[in-house]
Amino acid sequence: MIQRLAIIGVGLIGGSLARALRAAGGVEEVVGCGRSLPNLELARELGVVDRFTQDPGEAVSGADMVFVAVPLGAMRGVFASIRDALAPEAVVTDGGSVKGSVVAEAMGVWGAMPPRLVPGHPIAGTEHNGVEASFAELYRNRRVILTPLPETDAEALARVTAMWETCGAEVTRMSVGHHDEVLAATSHLPHMLAFGLVDALARMRENDEIFRYAAGGFRDFTRIASSNPVMWRDICLANREALSAMLARFGVEMTDLAESIRRADGDHLLEIFARAKAARDRYIDSARDL
Amino acid sequence: MIQRLAIIGVGLIGGSLARALRAAGGVEEVVGCGRSLPNLELARELGVVDRFTQDPGEAVSGADMVFVAVPLGAMRGVFASIRDALAPEAVVTDGGSVKGSVVAEAMGVWGAMPPRLVPGHPIAGTEHNGVEASFAELYRNRRVILTPLPETDAEALARVTAMWETCGAEVTRMSVGHHDEVLAATSHLPHMLAFGLVDALARMRENDEIFRYAAGGFRDFTRIASSNPVMWRDICLANREALSAMLARFGVEMTDLAESIRRADGDHLLEIFARAKAARDRYIDSARDL
Repeated sequence: MIQRLAIIGVGLIGGSLARALRAAGGVEEVVGCGRSLPNLELARELGVVDRFTQDPGEAVSGADMVFVAVPLGAMRGVFASIRDALAPEAVVTDGGSVKGSVVAEAMGVWGAMPPRLVPGHPIAGTEHNGVEASFAELYRNRRVILTPLPETDAEALARVTAMWETCGAEVTRMSVGHHDEVLAATSHLPHMLAFGLVDALARMRENDEIFRYAAGGFRDFTRIASSNPVMWRDICLANREALSAMLARFGVEMTDLAESIRRADGDHLLEIFARAKAARDRYIDSARDL
Repeated sequence: MIQRLAIIGVGLIGGSLARALRAAGGVEEVVGCGRSLPNLELARELGVVDRFTQDPGEAVSGADMVFVAVPLGAMRGVFASIRDALAPEAVVTDGGSVKGSVVAEAMGVWGAMPPRLVPGHPIAGTEHNGVEASFAELYRNRRVILTPLPETDAEALARVTAMWETCGAEVTRMSVGHHDEVLAATSHLPHMLAFGLVDALARMRENDEIFRYAAGGFRDFTRIASSNPVMWRDICLANREALSAMLARFGVEMTDLAESIRRADGDHLLEIFARAKAARDRYIDSARDL
C-alpha cells in the first residue's frame, strides 16, 4: 500500500496509474503536479488526484512513491526540482519510453544513479493525451519493463514491481540498452513510418482526394501518426542511436522490396510477404491473451 | 434487380457482394465459381450462392451480371474462359485493386475493351480471406470506384452503379490511371511498409523477444501485414509503375527524417510530426461517417 503517491505529469500515463491504484485500493493519497492548471483542475474533478500543486518539490514532499510521467525532454528539469525535496525513504520511478536518456539525466542531476530511482516503462498507451484520456484498465495485462542498474536498491525495485502488479501489469526486467533497442524496433520505428507516410501524402498536391479514398486498413495503419508530436520529437532525440540503426535496417529491407517490384520479381515478393504474414499471425497468436 | 449473378471467386469480396445483394433483395439467383471445391461447398452451405460450378464459362451462362473477384494474376485466365459464354446482354465488372492491368488483360483477351465490361474497385476489405470471412455489411458506407473508358456502355455503367448502391456503397468514377495512383498512395504503399517492417523484425535474431514487447499500436500498424501474400504479389506486379513512384517519394521522406534524427534536428522533426498529426486528425474527422 502506497501512503502518498506523487504524480508528476497527470496525463494518460500518470492519470491511468492513479486510477488503477485507486481502483485496486493500492494508494491512500494522490498528489498531482503538472504545467497545465486546467488539466490539474480536471484531474481533481475526475477524482484522479486528491490535490495538486504546480511545484514538483512541493508535490513530492512527504511522498513515499513518486511517478514521473513527463515527456523525455522535461525529465531533467523535474529531477532537478525534486532532488532536494524527496523524503529519504521515497522511491522514484518513471514512465519514459527511452531508458538510456532517463538514466543519463538522473546521473547528471544527482551526480550518480540514485539507488531508489527505478527506471521503468509501461508498454501501454493510446494516441490520446491528457487526464481525460486516462482509465484504470490501461495497464491490465500489459507489460511493464523495469531497467534496474547494479546500484539499484532491491527494496525500491520490489516496491515498484508491486505497484505495477497491483495495476494488473506483468513486470519484466532488462538492461537499459536492450530496452532501448527493443523499443526502437517495436514502437519508435513504426511511429516514424506512420508519421513519414502521412506527411508524404499530406505534402502531395492532391492530398485531400487521397485521404478521401483511404480505407480501414489505412486508418489502422496510421493511427499512431495522431500521437503527440512533442513527445515523439523527444523520443527520437533521446533514442537517436538505436532508432538510427533500426531506420537503416528498414531502409535495406525497403530497397530490396522496391528493387523486386521494379524488376517484377514475383517470387521474391511472395517470399517477403509470406514470411511477414507468418510472423504477424504468430505474433497475434502469442499476444491473444494480452 | 439482377436475375442471375455469377460470382467468379467466392471469397471475402465476392461473397460479401452476394450476401449484400441478397439481404437487400437485389438478386434472384447467385451462381458461384472458384478453384477451391471446399470453399464453394461452404459458400452453398452458408447460403451465399445457390449453386456452383468450377467452370467459369458454365457459371456465366445465362447470367445478366458477372462479378470477377479473383487475384489480379488470375484475371486474364477468367476473361479467356468466359469470353465466348457470356450472354449478349450480360454486364461484367470486377473487384481488382489495379485497374490498368485489368483493362490491359481484357483488351488482350477481347482484342478491344468490351463496352459491357465496367472496371471497378470496392474500397473495402479486411485482412481475412475466404467466404467464411464475407458479410453483408462490408460495403455499407464504403466507396466503390468505377473506371469506365470512353467505349464503356452507359447502360452497363448504370447497372453496375445501381448494384453497388444496393449494397449501401457510395459509387464514384475516375480514370484508370488516376485510380492506380490514388490506390498506390493509400493502400499499396502502406501494405509494403507493413510487410517490410514485420519482415525486417522477423529477420532479426531476437525476433521472438521483439514481438513479445510489441504493444497495441504495433498490432494496429501491422494488421495489414496479415493480408494474402499472393494477392499482394499480384498487386505489386500489376501496379509497378505507380507503386515504384510512391516508394521513391516515401524514400525521400524517410531519408529526410533519418537525417534529422542523426543530426538531432528537433525543430524539423517536430514540424514533420505536427504536420502528419494534423493531416491524420483531419482525415479522421472527414471519415467519421464512413
